Amino acid sequence: MKFTIQKDRLVESVQDVLKAVSSRTTIPILTGIKIVASDEGVSLTGSDSDISIESFIPKEDGDLEIVTIEQPGSIVLQARFFSEIVKKLPMSTVEIEVQNQYLTIIRSGKAEFNLNGLDASEYPLLPQIEEHHAFQIPTDLLKNLIRQTVFAVSTSETRPILTGVNWNVTGGELICTATDSHRLALRKAKLDINEDSSYNVVIPGKSLTELSKILDDHQELVDIVITETQVLFKTKNVLFFSRLLDGNYPDTNRLIPQESKTNLIVNTKEFLQAIDRASLLAREGRNNVVKLSAAANESIEISSNSPEIGKVVETVNAEQIEGEDLKISFSPKYMLDALKVLEGEDIHVSFTGAMRPFLIRTPNDDSIVQLILPVRTY
Amino acid sequence: MKFTIQKDRLVESVQDVLKAVSSRTTIPILTGIKIVASDEGVSLTGSDSDISIESFIPKEDGDLEIVTIEQPGSIVLQARFFSEIVKKLPMSTVEIEVQNQYLTIIRSGKAEFNLNGLDASEYPLLPQIEEHHAFQIPTDLLKNLIRQTVFAVSTSETRPILTGVNWNVTGGELICTATDSHRLALRKAKLDINEDSSYNVVIPGKSLTELSKILDDHQELVDIVITETQVLFKTKNVLFFSRLLDGNYPDTNRLIPQESKTNLIVNTKEFLQAIDRASLLAREGRNNVVKLSAAANESIEISSNSPEIGKVVETVNAEQIEGEDLKISFSPKYMLDALKVLEGEDIHVSFTGAMRPFLIRTPNDDSIVQLILPVRTY
Repeated sequence: MKFTIQKDRLVESVQDVLKAVSSRTTIPILTGIKIVASDEGVSLTGSDSDISIESFIPKEDGDLEIVTIEQPGSIVLQARFFSEIVKKLPMSTVEIEVQNQYLTIIRSGKAEFNLNGLDASEYPLLPQIEEHHAFQIPTDLLKNLIRQTVFAVSTSETRPILTGVNWNVTGGELICTATDSHRLALRKAKLDINEDSSYNVVIPGKSLTELSKILDDHQELVDIVITETQVLFKTKNVLFFSRLLDGNYPDTNRLIPQESKTNLIVNTKEFLQAIDRASLLAREGRNNVVKLSAAANESIEISSNSPEIGKVVETVNAEQIEGEDLKISFSPKYMLDALKVLEGEDIHVSFTGAMRPFLIRTPNDDSIVQLILPVRTY
Repeated sequence: MKFTIQKDRLVESVQDVLKAVSSRTTIPILTGIKIVASDEGVSLTGSDSDISIESFIPKEDGDLEIVTIEQPGSIVLQARFFSEIVKKLPMSTVEIEVQNQYLTIIRSGKAEFNLNGLDASEYPLLPQIEEHHAFQIPTDLLKNLIRQTVFAVSTSETRPILTGVNWNVTGGELICTATDSHRLALRKAKLDINEDSSYNVVIPGKSLTELSKILDDHQELVDIVITETQVLFKTKNVLFFSRLLDGNYPDTNRLIPQESKTNLIVNTKEFLQAIDRASLLAREGRNNVVKLSAAANESIEISSNSPEIGKVVETVNAEQIEGEDLKISFSPKYMLDALKVLEGEDIHVSFTGAMRPFLIRTPNDDSIVQLILPVRTY
C-alpha cells in the first residue's frame, strides 16, 4: 500500500472513525484504525463492535485531487498514535507506505514515522446490510430527533433496554422515545416513506450521541437502514453502524396523561432561568427538589430550600394559568434538561395533580413531549 | 449591612477572591467570602491562609455609580453558593442586605435568596504589612516573570523549598529562579529600585500561578511589598497576599555552565514542532526521551523510539551548528516547557557534552535562561 493524501482530509476522517474506537476493548485489533487504499480512494474504519464507523476519502472532490494512490493495499494502525501523529504532521500532504511485515512509513516534510501495523485481514468485517429498505431523514432533523430524546435514556444497566432510544416507525411517522423511568422524552416526525413500512427498534443512546457528533450541519439527507440487529446511518462519505438493543421496549403510551387539571403557559427562558437559580439551593437538600406553586390568575412561584445554606423564592409571570391551584415538587435537573431541548418562546406545562406525571410541550405543537415524574414533598 | 451593586462588577470581584478560597480548608469560616460595606465601597476577601485576596469595589468609577451603600456592615457568605448565585442573578443590579442572626437577603429582579451568613468578626485578619518599602513592576512584565519560571517548580513535597520560585533582588535587578532539580528556569529584570535594596525570598509557585490569573493585561504598575514572612502584590483594586516559604533556596548559580562545546541556533517554531512530534513516540518508552544528534555543518536530527509502537526521525535545518559533534537525550516535556516560554524567532542551545546540563536561550539576550539535565541513554 502506498498513497499520498491531503492532511486536512485525513485528519477529519480519522477524527470521525476515532469516535468508535475504545481503548478498553477486549479485542486488541479494535484499538486500531483500518486503512484501505483502493483505486477509488482511501477508507478508514474504527469499531468497538457496538459501533462501527467507516469514512471514505475519495480520490477527487470536484476538481481537487485529494488522494494519489501509488499502490492499493491495507493496514491497521494504532488509533491513538496514528490520530495524534497525523494531527501534528508538518506539511499539508502525507505519504503513507506499508513495507514488509506491516511496517508502515508516514512521511510529511522532513518528518518520518515508522509504525508497527497489523494485518488488515484480521480486522472484523463490518455488518453486511441489504440497502433496499432504506428511508431518508434530513441531517438537521436527525440531529434534533437525537438531541431532544437521547438525554432522557437511563444511565443504569439495571434495565439495559432503557439505555436506548426506541425508534418506532408506523403509518409514515417516526416516534422516538427515551425514558429512565423518572422522566420521558418523545419526539415525532413525518417520514417520506411508504405508509406500510414499520420498524420498532431500540438504538443505544451512546450510538446516537456519537452519530450526532459526526453529522455535519448540511441539509443533506441521511440514508437509514434498519435490520433485525443493526442500524446503518449513511451520509455521503460516512457509514455509521450500530447494533440494536435486544428486548422489548416498555409501552410508554399509558404513561402520558390524556387530560390535565392545571395548565401554565410561560416564557421558556424566564422559566428556565428561575429553575436554574432555584437549583442552586436545591443541591444540598436530601431530595434535591425545586417547588412550584401556581394559583389561578396569579404568578407562579418557584422555590427551594437547603436548611443549612439558605433558601430562594422567585415569582415568574405566567402568560396563562388555568385550572386547579397546584403545589408540586420536582427534580430541577430533569426540568432543565427538558426545557433546554424545547423550541419556541413559550412553553406549555400541564399537570394532573401533585403526584401525577406532568407534561412540558411547545404550545400548539405535539411533535415533542417531555414528561417528568414529580417528587413527593408536600 | 445593606447595599445595591452592579452585578458585573460584583461577579468579577467574586471570581478574583474565589481563587484564594479552598474547599479543603480546616478552618470552616475560610470556605466563605468576607463582604465589608463601608462609606467608600464594598470589599470582598477570600483566603486559604496561604493566599489571601482582597478585591475592592469603589462606590464610583469615573462618572459611573457602582455601589449605593444604605447601611455599612459586614458578613461572611459561603463562597461556592454565593459565587454561583451572583453569576445567575437575573438583573444588572443586586441588593444585598444582612438581617438578624447574619441572615442575608440577596435580591435581583423577582429572585430573592436567603443565605445563612457567618459573623465577619470571626474571619481571620489579613497580614499587616508596612508599605513604605514597596517597589513596582509593570503588570505585563510581572506576568512574563511568572510565566517564564513558575512551570519549572517542583510538584513534589520532598523538598518543599523547590515548590516555590526564588526572587532575589540585588543591585537593582530581580532574578527569578525555579527548579525541580531536573530543569531550571531563570528570568532577570531590571527594577526601578534603590540599588541598596535587597531581598531573597521564595514565593510558592501556586501563589504566583493564581496571582497571574487575576492580573489583567493593562500596563499598570503593581506595587510589591516583601516582608519576612509575606509578600503583597497590590494593584488598583486588588490586594494579593501570599506567605513565603521557609528555608534557604539552594545556590543554583553553580549549575549553570559558563562555557559550551556545541552551539546550535535554530528556528524556535520548527524545533518545537519537531520535538512535539518526536514526543508522540517517546511516551511509551521506559525513559520517555527524545534524542538529538548534531554534527558540524549538517542538520540536526531529532528522533525517538517506542519499541512496541514504532519510531520517528526528523531533520531540522539549523541556522548554525558550531563545535563538537553531539548525541544527547532529554525529556521532551522539559524541552517543550522551556521552548514555549522563550520569545524570539530563533533559539540558542548550548551543550557542554552529552551528560552535562544544557542551556536554551534567546540569542543575544541573557535575561532568560532555561536549563535542562539530559537523560543517559547513549
